[in-house]
Amino acid sequence: MAERLVVVGGDAAGMAAASQARRRDPSLDIVALERGTRTSYSACGIPYLVAGDVESPDDLVARTPDEFRQEHRIDVRMRHEATAIDLDARTVEVRDLVHERTFRLGFDQLMVGTGARPIRPDLPGIDGPHIRGVQTLDDGCRMLGEARELECRDVVVVGSGFIGLEMAEAFVRWGAKVTMVEANERPMSRQLDPDVGDRLVTAVRGLGIDARFGEAVEGFEEGLVHTASGPLRADLVVLGLGVAPEATLAEEAGLELGTRGSIRVNRRQATSTPGVWAAGDCAETYHRVSQRRIHIALGTVANKTARIAGVNIGGGYATFPGVVGTAITKVCGTEVARTGLSTEEAERAGFATVSATVETTTIAGYLPDAQPMVVKAIAEQVTGRLLGMQIVGGSGAAKRIDTAATALSAEMTVDDVVELDLSYAPPFSSTWDPVQVAARVVAGKV
Amino acid sequence: MAERLVVVGGDAAGMAAASQARRRDPSLDIVALERGTRTSYSACGIPYLVAGDVESPDDLVARTPDEFRQEHRIDVRMRHEATAIDLDARTVEVRDLVHERTFRLGFDQLMVGTGARPIRPDLPGIDGPHIRGVQTLDDGCRMLGEARELECRDVVVVGSGFIGLEMAEAFVRWGAKVTMVEANERPMSRQLDPDVGDRLVTAVRGLGIDARFGEAVEGFEEGLVHTASGPLRADLVVLGLGVAPEATLAEEAGLELGTRGSIRVNRRQATSTPGVWAAGDCAETYHRVSQRRIHIALGTVANKTARIAGVNIGGGYATFPGVVGTAITKVCGTEVARTGLSTEEAERAGFATVSATVETTTIAGYLPDAQPMVVKAIAEQVTGRLLGMQIVGGSGAAKRIDTAATALSAEMTVDDVVELDLSYAPPFSSTWDPVQVAARVVAGKV
Repeated sequence: MAERLVVVGGDAAGMAAASQARRRDPSLDIVALERGTRTSYSACGIPYLVAGDVESPDDLVARTPDEFRQEHRIDVRMRHEATAIDLDARTVEVRDLVHERTFRLGFDQLMVGTGARPIRPDLPGIDGPHIRGVQTLDDGCRMLGEARELECRDVVVVGSGFIGLEMAEAFVRWGAKVTMVEANERPMSRQLDPDVGDRLVTAVRGLGIDARFGEAVEGFEEGLVHTASGPLRADLVVLGLGVAPEATLAEEAGLELGTRGSIRVNRRQATSTPGVWAAGDCAETYHRVSQRRIHIALGTVANKTARIAGVNIGGGYATFPGVVGTAITKVCGTEVARTGLSTEEAERAGFATVSATVETTTIAGYLPDAQPMVVKAIAEQVTGRLLGMQIVGGSGAAKRIDTAATALSAEMTVDDVVELDLSYAPPFSSTWDPVQVAARVVAGKV
Repeated sequence: MAERLVVVGGDAAGMAAASQARRRDPSLDIVALERGTRTSYSACGIPYLVAGDVESPDDLVARTPDEFRQEHRIDVRMRHEATAIDLDARTVEVRDLVHERTFRLGFDQLMVGTGARPIRPDLPGIDGPHIRGVQTLDDGCRMLGEARELECRDVVVVGSGFIGLEMAEAFVRWGAKVTMVEANERPMSRQLDPDVGDRLVTAVRGLGIDARFGEAVEGFEEGLVHTASGPLRADLVVLGLGVAPEATLAEEAGLELGTRGSIRVNRRQATSTPGVWAAGDCAETYHRVSQRRIHIALGTVANKTARIAGVNIGGGYATFPGVVGTAITKVCGTEVARTGLSTEEAERAGFATVSATVETTTIAGYLPDAQPMVVKAIAEQVTGRLLGMQIVGGSGAAKRIDTAATALSAEMTVDDVVELDLSYAPPFSSTWDPVQVAARVVAGKV
């Protein structure tokens, strides 16, 4: 009899692992369980769906259940929820949500791709119906509907991370009155050093958002958000406080957990139980610069770790070298990106740091389309090893972070970065790319 | 008495070396000789000056002679041409072009930054007054004047390299009727593989340029360019056949020359004579991937090699690791970039290659601003080492070449590139960056 792989979760990680396993091992019997109504969609696209930039929610779906069934011979079962895993018996308890019946499914190998869920702070009134996290495509569709309705005038976004900023912009574009409440003194404070985060404040306010930094939410009630400064009107509250790994099923089954409750995996994406794998937002990963285990929920990481899991499930051998902490977004016209460690993260990891923040332009300063950009480079004292970079600026600024991300993987020093043969023509860059200008200034301080 | 540094050539290379030397050694007596009327300008900006994008030619000047005099204590002598170098006597013969007198200037160290000159093919009528290379800012100013005049209706651009394409677009934007004559079958044939170069043909023609590929120029006469297919009307002819190192002075002095007549230098930018240095477009450089000495005339390389020369002149120690062959430009809305070796270059250098060309989009395909882009990745068979990459596509496509340029410096394999933690959000990229998509496909062929 063919070996059976059961996949729990039919989104990016689960289905990428399943497809890769199928490619490696045509004989596998693959069953994928998804409690929702869609497979493999771009969760990162939800803010753009809500903003009205995407024609149809179906556009966010990379592959439909039928495509998986026909092209990859994967038995995708929609509206089927895995409710328990028995690691000894090697079975999954499954609830068919449509026919309301429960059954057990045996597995030889199991792939856990249960994703993450928006963090809901333990505050009075948090369970109110108008308080939403951004998780599934169905959530996105519902919010798009609400955004379109004129009644939805007051939107409060709690938190100022990537999703918070992207959702705030989406609602502003529909004409809503958006207030952002952030306990920290500046946006994206976990991602950016204070001097770089400060540059974003102007961009957020310029968007017409009533941004309240340094103001904590104290509770919710129907139509209101309470903060230290008093109540705010809120027809809708969007939670942008980040996500936590959805690892309850794994934990209850007895799989070992790691950082912040994520599922512990080794470099092959294997969990503590042989033949059981995890990848994507539910799993732990590794930071190549801090050399620490971390939890990071990003589409890129989900796809990469799932591919590694799939290769190993299919009988191949692959390891995931880890991440360097790259992230990017756009707030109206202002682009933001970061990679590596922030100064605080670097010091927490034990590095003594030097850094430099340079003001420059996205393209040759004498061209009419040149826009300001700021680059901060962080390096290790004495060795000059690049540890991190942060960028805020106009069009074309942020994607330059990839140069730094690549340099981090290669453990380059700032001197190495200065000598890189980066592309230059006036409509693309200054002669010394801004990334190199920042590296040069730091190199002078090492 | 203070040691004297004489700098021949007051453009990017000469003045960057002089400034760096000054920073390292405050006691140096520095004299810079420039036969023209401007120092340190962006020659790469000339096509944009001619196109009308730059307000004033002075905007292209990074630093004026007075700034060098006052801020760096460099004795800049404008309209002074070095006419001979006596390496034994350690003197330079100088012609003061304004006062029409000649004198000798002794040096302890000499920095040669004589640049490059446009290639003028040995064809009948090549010396006609309407046949122009793009070299100095004064050339640029003159062409801007001509472009503005309605009389200048027919412009023929000979060659289709970077400068040829940029100048063709500049004249098209002023309403000229532009014909491009290129002996090769496609544009940028030395830079791009045929399948990638083909993508550019449409862009060039879409610009309204009468592009004649596979058609060689046979000669010129007043108002005409002769090709195998007959004469073309030409009020102005722009040469876009690349540049050759301007090393006559160095050669006559007895300095050793290298590839294509460029001045031979070691990794510290030292020439064959102690205390005599060269950098920028006149000097030889080194290709980190092919491991061959090459001549390459680019602003980035000029600035980098000049900085190295300046550090060494000032008593420091620095070496230039070489280039990886990165270049970028834009033809109307189409961006083009390349790095590393083309397939032909790689095979000539002895590599057995595999490659893949992928069609993708600049940003998430479901967003309205997504534009097509093509990425070709070239790798070494067996080892999978990345050897080169080429990109053609819409806005945001080409600057991604820097990821490949950085990966080449680190001698990464295509598998390493696939695992890079590159930035992703829907307005910036597909989940797998196009660079990684190409690397993945090649990795499958290694």
